[in-house]
Amino acid sequence: MSDRPHTPVLDRVSTPADMKSLSDAELHQLADDVRSEVISAVSVTGGHLGAGLGVVELTVALHAVFDTPKDKIIWDVGHQCYPHKVLTGRRDRIRTLRQKDGLSGFTKRSESPFDPFGAAHSSTSISAALGFAVARDLGGAPPEGNGDAIAVIGDGSMSAGMAFEAMNNAGHLKKRMIVVLNDNEMSIAPPVGALSSYLSQLYAGAPFQEFKSAAKGAVSLLPEPFREGAKRAKDMLKHMTVGGTLFEQLGFSYVGPIDGHDLDQLLPVLRTVHDRATGPILIHCITKKGKGYAPAEQARDKGHGVSKFNVVTGEQKKAPSNAPSYTKVFAQTLLDEASRDDKVCAITAAMPDGTGLNLFAERYPSRCFDVGIAEQHGVTFSAALAAGGMKPFCAMYSTFLQRGYDQVVHDVAIQRLPVRFAIDRAGLVGADGATHAGAFDVAYLSNLPDFVVMAAADEAELVHMVATAAAYDDGPIAFRFPRGEGVGVELPERGEALEIGKGRMIREGARVAILSFGTRLAEVEAACEALAARGITPTVADARFAKPLDRTLILDLAEQHEALLTIEEGAVGGFGSHVAQLLADEAVFDTGLKFRSMVLPDTFIDQSSPEDMYAMAGLNAADIEAKVLDVLGITKLDSKRA
Amino acid sequence: MSDRPHTPVLDRVSTPADMKSLSDAELHQLADDVRSEVISAVSVTGGHLGAGLGVVELTVALHAVFDTPKDKIIWDVGHQCYPHKVLTGRRDRIRTLRQKDGLSGFTKRSESPFDPFGAAHSSTSISAALGFAVARDLGGAPPEGNGDAIAVIGDGSMSAGMAFEAMNNAGHLKKRMIVVLNDNEMSIAPPVGALSSYLSQLYAGAPFQEFKSAAKGAVSLLPEPFREGAKRAKDMLKHMTVGGTLFEQLGFSYVGPIDGHDLDQLLPVLRTVHDRATGPILIHCITKKGKGYAPAEQARDKGHGVSKFNVVTGEQKKAPSNAPSYTKVFAQTLLDEASRDDKVCAITAAMPDGTGLNLFAERYPSRCFDVGIAEQHGVTFSAALAAGGMKPFCAMYSTFLQRGYDQVVHDVAIQRLPVRFAIDRAGLVGADGATHAGAFDVAYLSNLPDFVVMAAADEAELVHMVATAAAYDDGPIAFRFPRGEGVGVELPERGEALEIGKGRMIREGARVAILSFGTRLAEVEAACEALAARGITPTVADARFAKPLDRTLILDLAEQHEALLTIEEGAVGGFGSHVAQLLADEAVFDTGLKFRSMVLPDTFIDQSSPEDMYAMAGLNAADIEAKVLDVLGITKLDSKRA
Repeated sequence: MSDRPHTPVLDRVSTPADMKSLSDAELHQLADDVRSEVISAVSVTGGHLGAGLGVVELTVALHAVFDTPKDKIIWDVGHQCYPHKVLTGRRDRIRTLRQKDGLSGFTKRSESPFDPFGAAHSSTSISAALGFAVARDLGGAPPEGNGDAIAVIGDGSMSAGMAFEAMNNAGHLKKRMIVVLNDNEMSIAPPVGALSSYLSQLYAGAPFQEFKSAAKGAVSLLPEPFREGAKRAKDMLKHMTVGGTLFEQLGFSYVGPIDGHDLDQLLPVLRTVHDRATGPILIHCITKKGKGYAPAEQARDKGHGVSKFNVVTGEQKKAPSNAPSYTKVFAQTLLDEASRDDKVCAITAAMPDGTGLNLFAERYPSRCFDVGIAEQHGVTFSAALAAGGMKPFCAMYSTFLQRGYDQVVHDVAIQRLPVRFAIDRAGLVGADGATHAGAFDVAYLSNLPDFVVMAAADEAELVHMVATAAAYDDGPIAFRFPRGEGVGVELPERGEALEIGKGRMIREGARVAILSFGTRLAEVEAACEALAARGITPTVADARFAKPLDRTLILDLAEQHEALLTIEEGAVGGFGSHVAQLLADEAVFDTGLKFRSMVLPDTFIDQSSPEDMYAMAGLNAADIEAKVLDVLGITKLDSKRA
Repeated sequence: MSDRPHTPVLDRVSTPADMKSLSDAELHQLADDVRSEVISAVSVTGGHLGAGLGVVELTVALHAVFDTPKDKIIWDVGHQCYPHKVLTGRRDRIRTLRQKDGLSGFTKRSESPFDPFGAAHSSTSISAALGFAVARDLGGAPPEGNGDAIAVIGDGSMSAGMAFEAMNNAGHLKKRMIVVLNDNEMSIAPPVGALSSYLSQLYAGAPFQEFKSAAKGAVSLLPEPFREGAKRAKDMLKHMTVGGTLFEQLGFSYVGPIDGHDLDQLLPVLRTVHDRATGPILIHCITKKGKGYAPAEQARDKGHGVSKFNVVTGEQKKAPSNAPSYTKVFAQTLLDEASRDDKVCAITAAMPDGTGLNLFAERYPSRCFDVGIAEQHGVTFSAALAAGGMKPFCAMYSTFLQRGYDQVVHDVAIQRLPVRFAIDRAGLVGADGATHAGAFDVAYLSNLPDFVVMAAADEAELVHMVATAAAYDDGPIAFRFPRGEGVGVELPERGEALEIGKGRMIREGARVAILSFGTRLAEVEAACEALAARGITPTVADARFAKPLDRTLILDLAEQHEALLTIEEGAVGGFGSHVAQLLADEAVFDTGLKFRSMVLPDTFIDQSSPEDMYAMAGLNAADIEAKVLDVLGITKLDSKRA
């Protein structure tokens, strides 16, 4: 334990109740302790570092002033919740962050009563806070009680439509609730959008230094803020308001901007708000992502998501990679297509790095659009780009595309517009856990009329699918690919457009046919190796398309084998279900075909390594082998005699 | 044709090109003619009357000033597009609105090049306009060319997050584009939300009369607006700007508010904007829904959606109803539950009348929440209400719940919060056509872990399902029901909580089992009547639950019959797919069970009567009968001998 930081005050705090007796000076020390502890913990686990370091003082101040878990602090997205976890009874497990059976990297209701509302996708916190505030006023009685509701939301998250909807509703309902706008001018990517410019003006034009001294003055004026008169509180709030008319127009009182790293500002402001707020109030805090740890402050991404690292040097320990990531293969192939076709353009919703489109933005800035955290708008914007004669590639993670589902149906599919959806992080994703799993896209896209839905079996296939999407102009087309590295196959010089709705044979065999959709193909191959040793040689095909299905291939496989097995990295309702529908429609089941469909199980799988998660899901080579043996009526011991 | 109105100028205009030679005085007459024509047409077709009457002058002015279809006018929602259709080559078919093979009630790309972007769901128009503007500047070349992009959006639609996302992005990109805010203080329901209050302040506080004379003055100053100098235009726009800082903060120039029924204001403003706008500009028009037709202006809903009516009296000709609507049964049952449990509360996204929650709002105003056109927020708000100890019923149409899909997954399902989803308009919906069909909810909800998904077979079942949802507190639960009247069964005095995951036997038969999910049960019964005459007596069961499935019931049916047929009013991937997955997992297909799954076909079905649409979908009694005969290998002629 010699590498653990010295944390004298934190050592006396296991839950926020222990903070109530601390002096303000001790709270300052507590913040320093928490910062050291978070840096130390993330150095051994990896994870989201910069976000947490940016809210250390805010976390301490909120827990010092409010009465959690009765009062609800709702951390938007949740990347910034590590200091909160350290202070709410989870310090002993903080070095298990994002690991199997460890703490989640996000807030999570099942983990602690201090996490009243789980997060991971952005911009949900104001809706959640409003719900708690309304439930409180209606007499709702959850086990921890219902007190104040406080949303802490970043400036990036605030740009999402959902946050606006919630502000609009909260301003109308006029319930007491608190929104802390954690403005670090940076979510994952540099800020985009008009709101961001507006926020910059707010504090660029504000008498920040004057305000700072006013707030500090308030501290000396208010040794016992609970005793101050209502008028003084009102004057103080008024003095603090140096801008923010946009929020006032939406019905919120606005306080700020204040320095979110200065407890001498945070504590009096929060105490005043705690004692005096009646309706919705927005507190505008300016913070620095990565604050207090030089390697993070100096990093381009401010230490957004990091690997394990050396605390002294900040150097990250990244595992060597064997093959390029699917993301990179997609991005580079798209660049290649864009170099030959000036109508190719790219859309991301605040994930230029995550989707690889940062490369596209550098090379073709006028054709690359980061719309902000705005999947709804991003999808419809893409639809109109297509209607206007462009070839838009809308690159989103599977789980985030859920945000734009209605727009996919209503604006893209019904109008049959050729938007190309590049769906990254399809399937299980590892440390980000259930909230980021791409489990549902095959199901929710494949039942849309006229949609083409592909999945890449490996990185070479991905190259061809990007080319296929670029060439296809007859309607919407999607291709999905997983997180992480490819399998190491050679990449083609240039992608070739695949024939729409045609799969490919991988190996001819007998008795059992395995029809794979996506990257489970490698596991299928491994299973076949194991089965071969037992004298069983399945036929293997790569479906490539969940829609349109390769009817000829599927019906031939069904006719020529006693069993047909499908496998995919998605929930029921997707590829296997479409195959089953075809088999039913064509009366194939009447023949006694042994049909099995391997899909993600009906459960949300917690974080672990992707390999572990697929093992939990029952979609690894051993599971495929077992399924083949089972469908042939062979126990594992018997199999030599098959 | 004697009841057709006298329309001397309109008779000379078949497309907007014909308007270019009209004087401003003739444009005034044209507006009057269009108004008369729309009233006359809707009197024989029914449809959305008030919205179109509110934009007659705006429609005339836009087409007079801009060069459609090269310039793109994008009507948000589209209810207001009838005048636009009259002026863009579709007058001869305007009396086929919303009927089979007739004009759509919305804009539709496949219907006319003057409809550059289809609509129906709200708040997509700004995203679409931005997409066209960007495509234009990138050299996109659709067949009609790429000119100006103009979104016309109502104040209600502007409250949706998606509109905010688009404004935020447009303000950032700074492309020339135009947003006309059609502010009638009323979308379908009375306005809610802080934005609405803000808009009211804008024109309440504005020197409206002064502005009006200034604009009229501008007309005399600008007989040839194309010749005026840049400075004058700038001064004029500046003079027109009497508020709108919220929009300016988002990067838009703001013009208004102006009287949207006064062509002497609209024409000069639009001409100036046309000639001089460089970046994004918002024109704030004040209009009256139903304008110029007294019965609509005086109606509570301003003639939002009307039946056929008598033009002179405004009296609507509604068909007599035989049974209460499902919507009403839901609403009244929920009132009943709320009377016994003060934790029951209700959430609607701007559809209090459509969902029947207007009754709830009257009786329990503090427990009923209209969140505005904000499904994303509405779902997460409901999730937090549940976390805060309430029993929220989130009432949304199937097609609109798509807007909140990510929130259903991320905030409700993953957290297993007991939000009750009342899903109205499930299945095909008639005159609103494909955009409003509730085709996908069973698929996109049933693959979410721990979700309970029910469908009511009739209105008595719906009563029980509301009671079931009220009683169930272990996680999310949804029940779906269709548009229109029930089948006329007697309603129970009080709903009883159903056993979760248990179906019910309807009739015992032989050879074929039909497992129905939802209101197709009546058609199944009718098919059985017809089959009985041929000596075939299928077993019939009502599944009630798509999730969890009644495994025992299904496996028993499979074992005891040679064929199993499922039927539902949803796309593939839903109930039938889950049954197929169960049968595969349990090796039931190995026995040669003849399995068939009747689902909505893989196509978007255009508007007609619901009965017609189900016939097109192949889900009526005759289709069921044919499917049973087919699966038994009996041709229709043979069937007497079966």
